[in-house]
Amino acid sequence: MAEYRKDPLVDRWVIIAPSRSARPHEYVETETIRRGGRCPFCAGSEAETPHEIAALRDAGTAADGPGWRVRAVANKYPFLDAMREGESGREGEWEPQKTSTTNLPPSPSPALSLFSAPALGLHEVLIESPTHVTRSGELSVAQTADVLRLYQLRMAALRQQSGIRYVQIFKNVGEAGGASLEHLHSQLAALTTVPDAVAAEHAAAREYFSRHGRCAFCELISRELAADVRVVEATPGFVVVCPYASRFSHEMQLFPRRHAASFDEMPEVELQELAAVLRRTYRRVESLTARSAYNLVLHVDSFDRCPGDHYHWHMEILPRSGKQAGFEWATGVFINAVAPETAAQRLRHAVCDLDDLRQSPSRRGEYAD
Amino acid sequence: MAEYRKDPLVDRWVIIAPSRSARPHEYVETETIRRGGRCPFCAGSEAETPHEIAALRDAGTAADGPGWRVRAVANKYPFLDAMREGESGREGEWEPQKTSTTNLPPSPSPALSLFSAPALGLHEVLIESPTHVTRSGELSVAQTADVLRLYQLRMAALRQQSGIRYVQIFKNVGEAGGASLEHLHSQLAALTTVPDAVAAEHAAAREYFSRHGRCAFCELISRELAADVRVVEATPGFVVVCPYASRFSHEMQLFPRRHAASFDEMPEVELQELAAVLRRTYRRVESLTARSAYNLVLHVDSFDRCPGDHYHWHMEILPRSGKQAGFEWATGVFINAVAPETAAQRLRHAVCDLDDLRQSPSRRGEYAD
Repeated sequence: MAEYRKDPLVDRWVIIAPSRSARPHEYVETETIRRGGRCPFCAGSEAETPHEIAALRDAGTAADGPGWRVRAVANKYPFLDAMREGESGREGEWEPQKTSTTNLPPSPSPALSLFSAPALGLHEVLIESPTHVTRSGELSVAQTADVLRLYQLRMAALRQQSGIRYVQIFKNVGEAGGASLEHLHSQLAALTTVPDAVAAEHAAAREYFSRHGRCAFCELISRELAADVRVVEATPGFVVVCPYASRFSHEMQLFPRRHAASFDEMPEVELQELAAVLRRTYRRVESLTARSAYNLVLHVDSFDRCPGDHYHWHMEILPRSGKQAGFEWATGVFINAVAPETAAQRLRHAVCDLDDLRQSPSRRGEYAD
Repeated sequence: MAEYRKDPLVDRWVIIAPSRSARPHEYVETETIRRGGRCPFCAGSEAETPHEIAALRDAGTAADGPGWRVRAVANKYPFLDAMREGESGREGEWEPQKTSTTNLPPSPSPALSLFSAPALGLHEVLIESPTHVTRSGELSVAQTADVLRLYQLRMAALRQQSGIRYVQIFKNVGEAGGASLEHLHSQLAALTTVPDAVAAEHAAAREYFSRHGRCAFCELISRELAADVRVVEATPGFVVVCPYASRFSHEMQLFPRRHAASFDEMPEVELQELAAVLRRTYRRVESLTARSAYNLVLHVDSFDRCPGDHYHWHMEILPRSGKQAGFEWATGVFINAVAPETAAQRLRHAVCDLDDLRQSPSRRGEYAD
């Protein structure tokens, strides 16, 4: 059973998910990446995954068979339990105790109580290609657009599902990025809660709007464009920057210029432009090292958005240099050895090199562009 | 120049430290661990490190030569700049702007301002053995005690240094743990600020005391001992538990039973008991896999502690299974596949296996116990 637990002292949540360790040797020090053998995500291996939840596929082809371009299935090792009706949070195995040394009234939420709640929701895998592609930049713009359409499709469907309050889409690429299968895939977690880091950003955006009468992200974008020292790319519809306080070297944020809280309501014409921008962004990251590892994070509004909220969806691309260690866990402060201004300069020029690479015959599985 | 930067929207700090990337190839996807060749941390290589700041050494031996048992030197690639007088925070390159759409008064700390401050302090390496030891469990109890004495020595000295408000001691072991040199060493960061995660814990402890008239950690320890499901080891002076909301599989916290905020004021008799407990704790972690990677974090009071504060120092041992990825960065919620109760059971029994290992002739550099 997957459960949320909260640290008894500080606001820090974890999901304890023993089902993630159902595999024979759950405690592995490096990720197991299947390089040879049969890949369960390749076309033809559909029987090796749970049933198809959604897919974009050729006309006349049937679910759970070949003919798909992108495909959503349940994660075999979910960190969320399937939704059940009527469950709620509960206290853990020690009850909040009255202390004997004081007559102060008990705190509203008793400190040091062991709070536990079922971690419910859906955990899906979004397979990005029927062929065995391992790097995002190897996908064509058309394929990248299909991946974004699948994001939209699942998000819009889950918006209708009772009890779901937030959908977190993310992607782990490379061993250091936390990928357990190298075949390119994103993941989706449909949550009954809005997680802390997301809620904090929502709250900050709401606060900014109430004070300044303007979306914080719209303002940030316009200031970044004016300062022009951290901009990696700006197209008519999108802006990619290295954030001022980047946690990771060569970290990037991708914003739509048009103010929009929901990703799944983006019109098709914008999606196509985004596909081209995102593909270039991936290629910039993948040009940094031969085996770049990184995470993609999609931050959107919550499904219980109020009229006064003014969020602005965006993507974060977080390269993993593998340096986060004791200091970061101890202090919450990240150390980044590459100034975002330097990173932006490097990344701006990276695409040219990538275009050279496109002449290389070693690319696999690339569609015509 | 190393600088603190704050995310313009949410409270998230980073240190931008380009001097960390002075090495020829600063963007490495896996850490470079020197396995062959000359190790700069071994006795006889003292000239390859910066000058000795402190050491425990045999009588009659001179600084920066052999004869030391543990040795503190400046980090060659510091993420903090040397202290200078009179520097303070400053705004970044865009000034907070007045918005045109509202007449609200400006916020007290203008949102979206780009805050930057010099990241000053000291960043030291604490070399734990003159011989080329790579696993903490290979050190004897006597050697482990020397390491703890060096922690105390440096912390007590820095307590006297003007401007230093917090000392973070941490240790990265193994490639996945972020170690860049395999020769066993801890690190010390003497900071002019109390970092967020530490300050939050200090504040929660202060709040708990003001409400309940008792130290939160003392209460936590007594409840964990009573519940007895997450206790790994309890000695007369120390308790090791797997925390209720463990972020990492097999995470442990080590507490002194006696209420004490400062690590450097611990009496020698307690230090010797701690050395034995800590060594067993390391061996438990190192029994999990052949090449366990983990971080040690020492949380202590800040140097500007007030009389009303009631912190309780402790250590965190954070095994790195390498799974932290997109979901964690996106949400701030950690996924842990091993319930702390299961982890505690495994770790309690791990020492027996380790004692068997002690018969093995493959151990290197172990002192008599």
